[in-house]
Amino acid sequence: MMQELALGIDIGGTNTAFGIVNRRGTIITKGSLPTTGHPTVEDYIATVRQTILPLLEQEGLEHFAGAGIGAPNGNFFTGEIVFAPNMPWRGVIPMANLISEALGIKATLTNDANAAAVGEMMYGVAKGMKDFIVVTLGTGLGSGFVANGQLIYGHDGFAGELGHVIAVRDGRKCGCGRLGCLEAYASATGIVRSADEWLAQRNDASLLREHIGKITAKSIHDAALQGDALALELFDYTAKLLGQTLADIIAITSPEAIIFFGGLANAGDLLLPHVHRYMEANLLNIYQNKVTLLQSALPDADAAILGASALVW
Amino acid sequence: MMQELALGIDIGGTNTAFGIVNRRGTIITKGSLPTTGHPTVEDYIATVRQTILPLLEQEGLEHFAGAGIGAPNGNFFTGEIVFAPNMPWRGVIPMANLISEALGIKATLTNDANAAAVGEMMYGVAKGMKDFIVVTLGTGLGSGFVANGQLIYGHDGFAGELGHVIAVRDGRKCGCGRLGCLEAYASATGIVRSADEWLAQRNDASLLREHIGKITAKSIHDAALQGDALALELFDYTAKLLGQTLADIIAITSPEAIIFFGGLANAGDLLLPHVHRYMEANLLNIYQNKVTLLQSALPDADAAILGASALVW
Repeated sequence: MMQELALGIDIGGTNTAFGIVNRRGTIITKGSLPTTGHPTVEDYIATVRQTILPLLEQEGLEHFAGAGIGAPNGNFFTGEIVFAPNMPWRGVIPMANLISEALGIKATLTNDANAAAVGEMMYGVAKGMKDFIVVTLGTGLGSGFVANGQLIYGHDGFAGELGHVIAVRDGRKCGCGRLGCLEAYASATGIVRSADEWLAQRNDASLLREHIGKITAKSIHDAALQGDALALELFDYTAKLLGQTLADIIAITSPEAIIFFGGLANAGDLLLPHVHRYMEANLLNIYQNKVTLLQSALPDADAAILGASALVW
Repeated sequence: MMQELALGIDIGGTNTAFGIVNRRGTIITKGSLPTTGHPTVEDYIATVRQTILPLLEQEGLEHFAGAGIGAPNGNFFTGEIVFAPNMPWRGVIPMANLISEALGIKATLTNDANAAAVGEMMYGVAKGMKDFIVVTLGTGLGSGFVANGQLIYGHDGFAGELGHVIAVRDGRKCGCGRLGCLEAYASATGIVRSADEWLAQRNDASLLREHIGKITAKSIHDAALQGDALALELFDYTAKLLGQTLADIIAITSPEAIIFFGGLANAGDLLLPHVHRYMEANLLNIYQNKVTLLQSALPDADAAILGASALVW
């Protein structure tokens, strides 16, 4: 019996998206369920089983090579989710085992950005690339590094935390407890913090003043599209810190491309050309004019599922 | 005919060391020749041929699997030395081809720190490790990154320039033309620059004052061993910048060990325990108490030759 199907599961802090995917990367069936609202991880797993198992059985369980799972702070080696700050449950969760037992198929887990990197390599703009970085700009900043055509997992499965490289020495407090992490600046949460700080410190006119206390990345985006100077400066500042940090990291893995993915990356022309400019201005000469910045071309909702499912092959 | 021998060549800015090495990593014959004093690279190659070819012929050229060459700014993919600031000759030098033609055996080239990483993996303290970093602390700061048991070359062969990660934003000028590179602080040259700057700016007593204008890493080392407070502070400061930067880079490749090599690394207890302390103090929690700092155990003169020769296998 040919096992030609994979289940891809993307566990986010709020929602879990899943899809049944064939080897060519076509999503045959997809759906979602809430991650939140389950007091314990066992309750969550019960919902996963109840929602997904009938769909697998409809295709025939014997057709499935396994499940691939992307999750924040997911560890490929252990299959665990480890101290994920945005998850409803604390501590170490053996998520790959729990899902494998619930569905009766093998399960492989990695962090969401690594899953996105695998997805880009198999089905996206990184097809054929052997050295690239995927940066997910969402609520936080995640990253997956590929070198020699392989994901860099590190000795313990925790490699690829670009969001926790220090962008501003002794800068603002990060969710991880340290000061000045890139994620505290270059993420949806980060740009909102910058806006709140600047509005409190400065007096220049801005459309954002009417949103004080409830500013979102979207309201900054909208203000910038209307030409609001402070909103444009916020994107420029975010791009500067991201571009500077990427210039440092390029000196480690020398990728041919950096692929951006996620909500803030969709700001497109407001962000990426500026990231590119600051990156080039800070690069060592041997790396200049060589690294392409790309936006993921996979449909937003599908990329995470495809990436997770690609772990199976 | 079994090709059981390799030639290892380590091209430094001043001297070129070479050795004939068997598969077990035993150096059968070794020697050196000056890198400097040759007006053109052709003159240098003539000396290489004249010095080394008779030794190869004595063993029998047919026994050689090839030559491995380590050189600053060496590129594995092209076999070229590219704009090496400490080399007597400018521009792009097709060194692997030149040496291959001169000696009549295949030749492979990479940068000196990558060669050291291969040497440590095959014959040194990194034996059996799949994820580690080698940092060479000499005149400059070089590095070789191994992930999944393979050197990270990057898409263009230029990966692994830890020395050009920014340690101090808008800091002192580096030889590369940019500001604040780690190499401008954490290297023999860097610690001397720190000493010169501090002695010019500060008035505290120090044994180093009598050496002003001719301070070397060795005179700082000697003063520190005598308990000189300024010299000890210089090591602490160097360790701080190195430890902070390593903490950032660990978040990218999550190595199990970082192996130090070269003149400044031999400062031993004056440097590495402090690097370790600053590194731990700056690490994201998931990496804490996991990364071992090691000093290379290969004899200094041999490690570079062994590493270069190991490229052949």
